[in-house]
Amino acid sequence: MGAPVERTRIRRLPDKAVRERSTLHAVLDAGTVAHVAFVHDGQPYAVPVAYGREGDTVLIHGSTGSRLFRLLAAGAPCCLTVTLLDGIVLARSAFETSMRYRSAMVLGACTVVEDQVPALRTISERILPGRWAVVRPPSKKELAQTLVLALPLAEWSVKVSDGWPEDTPEDEGWDPPTGVIPIREVRDELLDVGTATDAAPPAAPR
Amino acid sequence: MGAPVERTRIRRLPDKAVRERSTLHAVLDAGTVAHVAFVHDGQPYAVPVAYGREGDTVLIHGSTGSRLFRLLAAGAPCCLTVTLLDGIVLARSAFETSMRYRSAMVLGACTVVEDQVPALRTISERILPGRWAVVRPPSKKELAQTLVLALPLAEWSVKVSDGWPEDTPEDEGWDPPTGVIPIREVRDELLDVGTATDAAPPAAPR
Repeated sequence: MGAPVERTRIRRLPDKAVRERSTLHAVLDAGTVAHVAFVHDGQPYAVPVAYGREGDTVLIHGSTGSRLFRLLAAGAPCCLTVTLLDGIVLARSAFETSMRYRSAMVLGACTVVEDQVPALRTISERILPGRWAVVRPPSKKELAQTLVLALPLAEWSVKVSDGWPEDTPEDEGWDPPTGVIPIREVRDELLDVGTATDAAPPAAPR
Repeated sequence: MGAPVERTRIRRLPDKAVRERSTLHAVLDAGTVAHVAFVHDGQPYAVPVAYGREGDTVLIHGSTGSRLFRLLAAGAPCCLTVTLLDGIVLARSAFETSMRYRSAMVLGACTVVEDQVPALRTISERILPGRWAVVRPPSKKELAQTLVLALPLAEWSVKVSDGWPEDTPEDEGWDPPTGVIPIREVRDELLDVGTATDAAPPAAPR
């Protein structure tokens, strides 16, 4: 309990803070990549990871050879943030131009998940529902190379920005197009391995 | 100079590391949101921010009232990471399933940018090219509420994963669809403010 507590209290733009745990779940369930912040030798790092959610736990997995995962497995404090960019809010002024987004931040420390396979299945189902049922499950050797970690949804905050642009009195006389440019993530059709003409096609322009 | 140096040497999957500064620039120039990691009272945080790039400097801006921006302005060590998710790599095994992505990580400390307007223009042009020319520029009062920070591209790393799935001998007999599901970010047509029927439409499902 106790969420949001002091460390996750929304200080900036508190009207964007959302208190419902269902919204926290919804944001986590809509993302594919999280950024995990951790500290090593006094230096903070933010590293992208795939993740899944099972009830009030976020699950991540990585190699036993990964610095990030070894540190997290040892209980280092961390922050896992999932940000979904939903649009650009075009106001008449530069100052009021902003983003539509949903962002969930979870603070805490991870524990090692011994029962790896159900957790890996949860992560797989978050990335691509239905996939787990058709792939070869991990072997004992593969599991021995994998760390699965759990981060409880105990201390967290969620911000949702979904509004329209605001005008100020100083904007009088400035009339650019205003409104919202929606941004969304699209998954295209599967490219079959047979279509690989050489090592890899260039990444799509964005 | 000295990039990548020890703290940004790619330890995991070093074949994905890219040394060219042009790739670093290209990844930064393709993203819209970065995650900044910083430490406060021993707790790491990862916070999403908009950003821009001018030469070998990343620029970010925020409120003078923001804890993040006050800490960074004071020279706190930070890490700025931009991750572009390009696809899901579907292998025959769960273990070899992975992501296509481009990720740039910059370590360092920020300095305060006194000449705010050109930097804010750079950030605006990264978010939406051409927009700066048509909006009301920031007033003195607005600039007084804004911190603009510069992070040099001195210590950095870039990882690019753009391959195809790999099979292992154990996959014999497992034949799910394999290949790559491309993922891309799409910007839709501007929704005019006039189309706002009430406070805000619900965020699009993703």
